[in-house]
Amino acid sequence: MSVCVPKGYLMAGVHCRIKRDPQKPDLTLVMSELPAAAAGVYTRNLVFAAPVALDSSRTPSDRIQVVVINSGCANACTGERGLRDAREMARLAAAACGCQEYQALVMSTGIIGEFLPMEKIAQGISAAAVKLGRTEECLISAARGMLTTDTKHKIAGRSVKIGGRQIQITGMAKGAAMMGPNLATMLALILTDAPLTADDCQDALAASVERSFNCMSVDGHMSTNDTVLLLANGAAGGEPLQGDQLAQFQQALDEVCIELAIAIPADGEGATHLITLKLTGCASRQAAMQIAKTVANSPLVKTAVAGADPNWGRIVSAAGYAGVPFDPAKVSLKVNGFLLYENGAPTHFDAASVSRSIRDNRDTLVELGFGEGDAELTFWTTDLTAEYVRLNADYHT
Amino acid sequence: MSVCVPKGYLMAGVHCRIKRDPQKPDLTLVMSELPAAAAGVYTRNLVFAAPVALDSSRTPSDRIQVVVINSGCANACTGERGLRDAREMARLAAAACGCQEYQALVMSTGIIGEFLPMEKIAQGISAAAVKLGRTEECLISAARGMLTTDTKHKIAGRSVKIGGRQIQITGMAKGAAMMGPNLATMLALILTDAPLTADDCQDALAASVERSFNCMSVDGHMSTNDTVLLLANGAAGGEPLQGDQLAQFQQALDEVCIELAIAIPADGEGATHLITLKLTGCASRQAAMQIAKTVANSPLVKTAVAGADPNWGRIVSAAGYAGVPFDPAKVSLKVNGFLLYENGAPTHFDAASVSRSIRDNRDTLVELGFGEGDAELTFWTTDLTAEYVRLNADYHT
Repeated sequence: MSVCVPKGYLMAGVHCRIKRDPQKPDLTLVMSELPAAAAGVYTRNLVFAAPVALDSSRTPSDRIQVVVINSGCANACTGERGLRDAREMARLAAAACGCQEYQALVMSTGIIGEFLPMEKIAQGISAAAVKLGRTEECLISAARGMLTTDTKHKIAGRSVKIGGRQIQITGMAKGAAMMGPNLATMLALILTDAPLTADDCQDALAASVERSFNCMSVDGHMSTNDTVLLLANGAAGGEPLQGDQLAQFQQALDEVCIELAIAIPADGEGATHLITLKLTGCASRQAAMQIAKTVANSPLVKTAVAGADPNWGRIVSAAGYAGVPFDPAKVSLKVNGFLLYENGAPTHFDAASVSRSIRDNRDTLVELGFGEGDAELTFWTTDLTAEYVRLNADYHT
Repeated sequence: MSVCVPKGYLMAGVHCRIKRDPQKPDLTLVMSELPAAAAGVYTRNLVFAAPVALDSSRTPSDRIQVVVINSGCANACTGERGLRDAREMARLAAAACGCQEYQALVMSTGIIGEFLPMEKIAQGISAAAVKLGRTEECLISAARGMLTTDTKHKIAGRSVKIGGRQIQITGMAKGAAMMGPNLATMLALILTDAPLTADDCQDALAASVERSFNCMSVDGHMSTNDTVLLLANGAAGGEPLQGDQLAQFQQALDEVCIELAIAIPADGEGATHLITLKLTGCASRQAAMQIAKTVANSPLVKTAVAGADPNWGRIVSAAGYAGVPFDPAKVSLKVNGFLLYENGAPTHFDAASVSRSIRDNRDTLVELGFGEGDAELTFWTTDLTAEYVRLNADYHT
């Protein structure tokens, strides 16, 4: 794992008073010294925020140089004025970096239904522009500027040699759950110095997201602002990657995205367990995804894990209502390696041992086997604790 | 509302030591003095329990006379032996009532993955058979015999004059959530003395269930044992209902089913609010159902209500990821009569007043208006509290 700033990028995170706590950066500015290929994958929620509207109109692109991110205000459900604000935020960031407005992308996360405090944003952009750098400190403050209720920043990186060039991929992400009042969203920004065409950049990101961020949920609530961006500025040199080189890049990008995706439920609000669901023997990947989401979002499955209860009935019956046909008599289930259910019936397992193994480990591995085909899927989620409810029910008028 | 026992039925609830607490009946026996038309609607979970397999093979029918129900053990995930036990339980109940085995139906609810304690079941059936009666006490003990974690029994009835005959419909139900360790299920048994053909009985029940039990969820987890049965023994006299008479009956049956369906989330585990979702202006009933389920099952919506938080962002964004196309600019939202969101943007509402109204009432009315068509739907659910999590995470090895 390698988490330095890729060649040709500068970044900073500053506090500009959107959040109350002056210790918490709330604005991140990232600049590429070269025009970069840029790709985006966005929320499929019909109710999407202004920055999503802006970025999706500007990606894929081959000349992005600036990404500006704020936390504390999502600029969602803000209508025409919200769109104007997002454009103005992009313009200010581009100007501060000596670029054109269309070369900038924007991400926002925080309270829904409030307008961006544009004066603070403008001050923050100016302050960040003079702090731009490529030290570890710059990287961490940039990663912190996008956080909301996260308890820690999330950075992942890989350095790989591809076709004689040393290529760096470094990503940062935020997301703990959608939570209250109205905080939202999973955001990720991945930077690489690899040379990529805009189309390959988009295809590579879409493929990685499908195997990482789309295989993860905390509470199943899709936000208005979810965004994953990839910038590839080619500062590592050479012609755009293709063929085997592109496949090598894809592999490294997958690893970065998966590491970031796992970090989100691992830091889930009030969570005491990271649950890894491994599905095998499914008829198709789509079938596996449907079952995985249904099991992962069952509050009864999540509370069982929180309570260290080896409750195979809840897991198997959640699979049963996923709307995907399978033969229950061919189902098997392991939890943390213990076989609880086989060929449609419970085994004679030692409940106390399984319970202890769940209670004593933060990671819970749930393996569900079907007899329908060859498709497999790994999915990550959290347990559900009284602390999650407390965090999300706590409202101050 | 009228909750007497319909003509021609006898019933009893007894304690036969499946449950530990001797104060709690755990076996219910219901007998019709005449062969009755009988209909069933069952869980669509692929992992369904033995009594569901048995009853679905015996309904619709025109000669059912016995229904036997136990709580404390669901006889689910019990394979061939479970099926044999369910058949034997039906046979014992039929014999105790002087009927043939095929004239009996069975319902079970409770722990998954354990075999029925057949000796206790047999003793319970014998004890219940000698207590059969039609008093209010018999009705209540029968309704209590099917309960698991419910805090109260659930009975609803209607008396209607149809074609010169006084017809009684009386139903009983159980269900609070699927909960641990492994307790399960929504069960309902509705009895009427109306004369119905087996086909009309099945059609009427299916239509009512679609408008009642299928419009309700506590935690979105579909059980292995969910069953709704309707018996119509014709003791009110006359030829089978048809045409307008059948429509009148359907209306009364709808009312009974809706009253029972609402009673389930109203008694939801740890719930502090009954949430009624009214959707209007949807493109189709199916679209409305999909949106209603998505909003009702969002833990963020449920925790917001628990916390008296008028969090329109969570409600509107949950609708946005239901997978149903709609124009967000035509969406409006009221909570307890307060307009929070109109034409795709939040209104200037007084958050403190709305919060107080949620906090001070057990019922929360959420009205979501769309501009897509004429379809409407009412759906009932509960909030999500730390107490629900505590109840469901609490596991004793």
